[in-house]
Amino acid sequence: MKRGHQVTMKEIAKKLNVSVSTVSRALKDSPELHPDTKKRIVEMAKSMNYQPNLLAQSLRISRSKVLGVIVPELESHFFSSNISGIQDTAYKRGYNVMICQSNESYVQEISNIRVLVASQVDGLLISLSRETKNYQHLQDLYDREIPFIMFDRVTEEIPVSRVTVDDEHGAYQVTHHLLEQGCRKIAFISGPQDLYISKKRKEGYLKALAEYGISEKDSRVYISDLNQESNRQIAYKILEEEDRADAIFAMIDPVAVDVMLILKEKGIRIPEEIALAGFTNNPTSAVVEPALTTVSQPGYEMGQIAANHLLDQLDDIVSDEPQSFVLGTTLIPRNSTLKVK
Amino acid sequence: MKRGHQVTMKEIAKKLNVSVSTVSRALKDSPELHPDTKKRIVEMAKSMNYQPNLLAQSLRISRSKVLGVIVPELESHFFSSNISGIQDTAYKRGYNVMICQSNESYVQEISNIRVLVASQVDGLLISLSRETKNYQHLQDLYDREIPFIMFDRVTEEIPVSRVTVDDEHGAYQVTHHLLEQGCRKIAFISGPQDLYISKKRKEGYLKALAEYGISEKDSRVYISDLNQESNRQIAYKILEEEDRADAIFAMIDPVAVDVMLILKEKGIRIPEEIALAGFTNNPTSAVVEPALTTVSQPGYEMGQIAANHLLDQLDDIVSDEPQSFVLGTTLIPRNSTLKVK
Repeated sequence: MKRGHQVTMKEIAKKLNVSVSTVSRALKDSPELHPDTKKRIVEMAKSMNYQPNLLAQSLRISRSKVLGVIVPELESHFFSSNISGIQDTAYKRGYNVMICQSNESYVQEISNIRVLVASQVDGLLISLSRETKNYQHLQDLYDREIPFIMFDRVTEEIPVSRVTVDDEHGAYQVTHHLLEQGCRKIAFISGPQDLYISKKRKEGYLKALAEYGISEKDSRVYISDLNQESNRQIAYKILEEEDRADAIFAMIDPVAVDVMLILKEKGIRIPEEIALAGFTNNPTSAVVEPALTTVSQPGYEMGQIAANHLLDQLDDIVSDEPQSFVLGTTLIPRNSTLKVK
Repeated sequence: MKRGHQVTMKEIAKKLNVSVSTVSRALKDSPELHPDTKKRIVEMAKSMNYQPNLLAQSLRISRSKVLGVIVPELESHFFSSNISGIQDTAYKRGYNVMICQSNESYVQEISNIRVLVASQVDGLLISLSRETKNYQHLQDLYDREIPFIMFDRVTEEIPVSRVTVDDEHGAYQVTHHLLEQGCRKIAFISGPQDLYISKKRKEGYLKALAEYGISEKDSRVYISDLNQESNRQIAYKILEEEDRADAIFAMIDPVAVDVMLILKEKGIRIPEEIALAGFTNNPTSAVVEPALTTVSQPGYEMGQIAANHLLDQLDDIVSDEPQSFVLGTTLIPRNSTLKVK
């Protein structure tokens, strides 16, 4: 081995044919790993004269007292309330917050990470873009031992902490409520199928249907790009079906609002002819008429929990062992679905 | 003078008893100044052996290709659309954007500036917090020759470029429209009186009233803190007046929506009994029932213009001479005011 060459975790991982995260866990003495695995890795690290990344460690001592946040977009109320929760928590603990927006672009997300790391933030809170399907940029961040956690739009492929909402249960709650109101032909307007939240919310929808004896083949799933044009097209499609739906559950509130405008335009009574529900509890959902039944997603609390956990890790109050926080949802029944009052 | 001491613009300003901005303008050969003043300053600078801030200049050559943005809050649709406009423009020109939120706090705004400057952004776009009444932190930024411009919430006290919306004309348009609809007892719900936009929008309101022979003493101005509780209290107060208003013009859409909920709760018909209008054209304003008459504020365009102008200054496409851009507003009449259809 060349003199002065610094052995990396990647090299140790390669030698032993294990993942970099396993090496990292072993060197952090994680209780998750089998003692034999741990021993094997620690011995290899010793024999290769591995030195922990001193730069990363020194950065961790000389703090910038700034956290970096990356969100897919800022125009959504959910992400802006995440940021408020992160920021209020960070300030209380003496930290500033710098925010970057990926604009749902994978390339932009990579560039955001680069810019924030160059600014020497102490840690990052990341919510992935809609386009992100490759996680090498996150793995690189992990390998460089730069502390970060993920929230809302997460991947399970990188061993860092995650804060999410119980999407499946939230969708189950809405669908179950519609079934209780007597609806049996419930259309579900989903977002793009590869989105994590699309999958989870569809699972909750199907689970509730199954409880009422409605099988997946009798389910009614429509895929929208989540923009107004796409939402409107789907609404027209649903209305034209021969055996028309008696309820529509839209994956997010803005979609439900777009659908509501079409139903009103067509003179269809809500909820008598078609019941309508959303997800998120955006401020708008309470002021449309009829007010929209939805599920509240605790965006502010999600931000608080994410920031507190990252700061706890930075301050060594908790270990770097990845945790998964799953926040509960609350059904908010309103007039757009309440047939039985 | 001590050897090695670097003379600042402040010292030149003090010697001549002029402002630092005047010195800066003179050294940039601004056409705004009287030639005699310019000559006097340039000669003093020479005699004091003034050297332009080389650090600032070198920073300007070795670019980070990052712009910093400071906004009062992110939960408002207006500011998030500003940011989208800034960001789309910056990306097209090869720049990244880092955002800080002051949370309407003066102290936080100062801290945001410090963090972004420490991150070596090439320039800043700043929208002031509600609390900011002292501008020394901006003067310091100016004296350090760090390029920045202001947008929406601006001050005229610092000689940098500003991008604003024509608040006065927008409020005039709404009030004029209400008068055309036959309303004569128009209540105006203003925000805190020291806010620049409160002043400007009130001026527009009073100007339209004056054209219909209604004097300021017969105007109906109410001051709200702009939170829901305060908005609701004002709505109740307006409804209890003996000579009740026949129209309400709320300074921003969210206030109008809060008022709408109270009017509906009380069974008051909109617009027949009371016409209602807002300002900003938030997405919500189009989906409430009745849809809300408002004025569109081009938030995205404001961001584009601000970012393009700052980048033009950085690239020496335009001079650093301060410019003032005032964007037009468009009245959007909807059912909440249309009595005459």
